[in-house]
Amino acid sequence: MEQRITLLTLGVSDYARAKAFYAALGWSPGLEVDETAFFQGNGIILTLWGREKLGPDMGIPDDGARWSGIALAHNVRSHEEVHEVIELARRNGADITREPADTFYGGYAGAFRDLDGHAWEIAYNPGFGLDEDGNVVLPSR
Amino acid sequence: MEQRITLLTLGVSDYARAKAFYAALGWSPGLEVDETAFFQGNGIILTLWGREKLGPDMGIPDDGARWSGIALAHNVRSHEEVHEVIELARRNGADITREPADTFYGGYAGAFRDLDGHAWEIAYNPGFGLDEDGNVVLPSR
Repeated sequence: MEQRITLLTLGVSDYARAKAFYAALGWSPGLEVDETAFFQGNGIILTLWGREKLGPDMGIPDDGARWSGIALAHNVRSHEEVHEVIELARRNGADITREPADTFYGGYAGAFRDLDGHAWEIAYNPGFGLDEDGNVVLPSR
Repeated sequence: MEQRITLLTLGVSDYARAKAFYAALGWSPGLEVDETAFFQGNGIILTLWGREKLGPDMGIPDDGARWSGIALAHNVRSHEEVHEVIELARRNGADITREPADTFYGGYAGAFRDLDGHAWEIAYNPGFGLDEDGNVVLPSR
């Protein structure tokens, strides 16, 4: 298995609402088919799809839980960008679960949950650089 | 907000066990700090971290749910690769939630859950090409 994640699918309860939320945050689908939105990211593709279809498709019984221990992170280039994204999410109905603040790893970050409870950290981490495509570059050991 | 996901953190109940599972599947951390493993992927970094730390860090109350509507996908280049990865996961204790089979989108895929319940689809999708780095290329509209 190569070290790759090609798609990350977020199951959503209301497709139009989820698409509008991500549109407000600046995400524009590169492809949309049968109420499935594919957003071209940096290598990975973010996908929004009805959760009522995703569970059966994956063979997973769904009890409707809102969090199962997964966090997405979006690293940015400054403290200001952390605030901008967190405020944009707040204005669009996200639940801000951590207000922007210094982090234990020497960075600055805030966190929110989207309208379906999926969790994002918006982080400025001076120890993890970003290349010109916005990918994190792990520091050398 | 740029269309990027920089890290994806999987909360795990037993760090050493989770790291051994992903090692058996071929993942090698590029950095490891304080029981946090960072795997350099294609743009995105996969991170393993204790779930008991991740919940509080994100400001999220954790009821221990095993699935909240998120699926990771690993697209491969052939039917054979789908089988290889699914069998590797099975041999290492994963729960195969969908045996490899033709999919509704004209591909061929199987799915498993890792030891913490995080869900992966292993997919061959002839409609979504892979570039030389293994990134999915969305078809033009």
